[in-house]
Amino acid sequence: MSSSPVIILVEPQLVENIGMTARAMMNCALGELRIVDPRDPWPLHDPLQERMLAASSGADEILLNAKIYPTVETAIGDLNYVYATTSRTHDMVNRIMTPRTAIPDMATRIAADEKVGVLFGRERTGLVNDHIVLANAKITIPLNPEFASLNLAQAVLLIGYEWYQSRDTTPQDYLDIGRSRPANREEYLNFYRRLESELEAAGFFVAEDMRPTMTRSLQTMLQRAAMTEQEIRTWHGVISALIGVPKRKQALKAGEDP
Amino acid sequence: MSSSPVIILVEPQLVENIGMTARAMMNCALGELRIVDPRDPWPLHDPLQERMLAASSGADEILLNAKIYPTVETAIGDLNYVYATTSRTHDMVNRIMTPRTAIPDMATRIAADEKVGVLFGRERTGLVNDHIVLANAKITIPLNPEFASLNLAQAVLLIGYEWYQSRDTTPQDYLDIGRSRPANREEYLNFYRRLESELEAAGFFVAEDMRPTMTRSLQTMLQRAAMTEQEIRTWHGVISALIGVPKRKQALKAGEDP
Repeated sequence: MSSSPVIILVEPQLVENIGMTARAMMNCALGELRIVDPRDPWPLHDPLQERMLAASSGADEILLNAKIYPTVETAIGDLNYVYATTSRTHDMVNRIMTPRTAIPDMATRIAADEKVGVLFGRERTGLVNDHIVLANAKITIPLNPEFASLNLAQAVLLIGYEWYQSRDTTPQDYLDIGRSRPANREEYLNFYRRLESELEAAGFFVAEDMRPTMTRSLQTMLQRAAMTEQEIRTWHGVISALIGVPKRKQALKAGEDP
Repeated sequence: MSSSPVIILVEPQLVENIGMTARAMMNCALGELRIVDPRDPWPLHDPLQERMLAASSGADEILLNAKIYPTVETAIGDLNYVYATTSRTHDMVNRIMTPRTAIPDMATRIAADEKVGVLFGRERTGLVNDHIVLANAKITIPLNPEFASLNLAQAVLLIGYEWYQSRDTTPQDYLDIGRSRPANREEYLNFYRRLESELEAAGFFVAEDMRPTMTRSLQTMLQRAAMTEQEIRTWHGVISALIGVPKRKQALKAGEDP
């Protein structure tokens, strides 16, 4: 998976966090995990291995393929561009990006066949200056400055989430209409005309001068609902029921299946 | 905090997840938490209360102000617009948004004094149809379809993260230069001219026809680095050192403090 950024955990202390990191990576279709000098020697033995796998909720593949390195230098040796995640100012002259700008930058580099990676520091302390200086740029996730400490796996999740969004083609806002189809204008207008004529018959429009306002109000609400063909038929049934058409005739009148 | 979306956890099973949700909310400056029919009766007693607070890593305030409701209906009664988070298709005609479009929608409603909330279902099962039908719209977080199950607190974090980003004014990409200031063009050009003349003196430009290519290459690399005034002075020192100027004279020549 050289077509995604490599995730590099530096000196992680808790195997649960390594497992949850793998889960977050899998959520975001990231594949390559590298670990620098973990607190517990690798390969892990039970019960540590078991605890890590449990925390990963099934992202075992990433953990079993994870590579271990003694230093940050060796872990990033083959990479062309490295980002260091940090929430602190380190008094070094460094390019600082948000995830939202870092991700297109990564994507551009990867498209040009560069290999990129993101460094995450150990729990509580984060990355130290000696590690940050090895990176080309820093990523700082904009969060509540009064409560910015993120769990390690959550930091990985936010970077991975932005990565996934940049490649995702899900429509941003759409109507899920399942097995039905959107009603066409004729079906809608037939329905509306029937509603209006039944309301007419029922004496709904008491004051004739209020009628245009009334009908516009009903129409805009119905239009806004953007009904499906199935829903239009259901509402024909609703009208029939309310005006007292017997059940069998309702079906005939509304064109529903009996 | 009616100026932020209300987070509503429906039937959460684990107090740790409630605690981690509060932490994620605090990370994203969200304040109002409502809980519908939690598995463990509220108020919690130790050790459950203690476990929840530990998982919140200090976001106690949100937990102590959380309100408990017996049903989703009562929990959302005062809200004007409700979003249901779900990763599953529920075969209902519903507006589906990604977080990235749902958030501006929320912000617009909140600006118009509406009160909005986001429903999160219980662990493993998520929201059921009877809850989803109470919402105006669904939010589905685009994630790896082969591994989309998110921890409850992570789902809250991703919605909260998008919320925070929409209000955040952090520059998306900038150079953190600490206490220094960007070098001006004169400082930069003085430095470059000195470098070139020292290289000239050292016999660096062997083939005169290659010289323009060479100098352009050096210049573009140096320009790209966008050095600070302090860094320019440091590099004057580097040149002085390399050409063998004794330490004391170096300082004089480069204009550094001795």
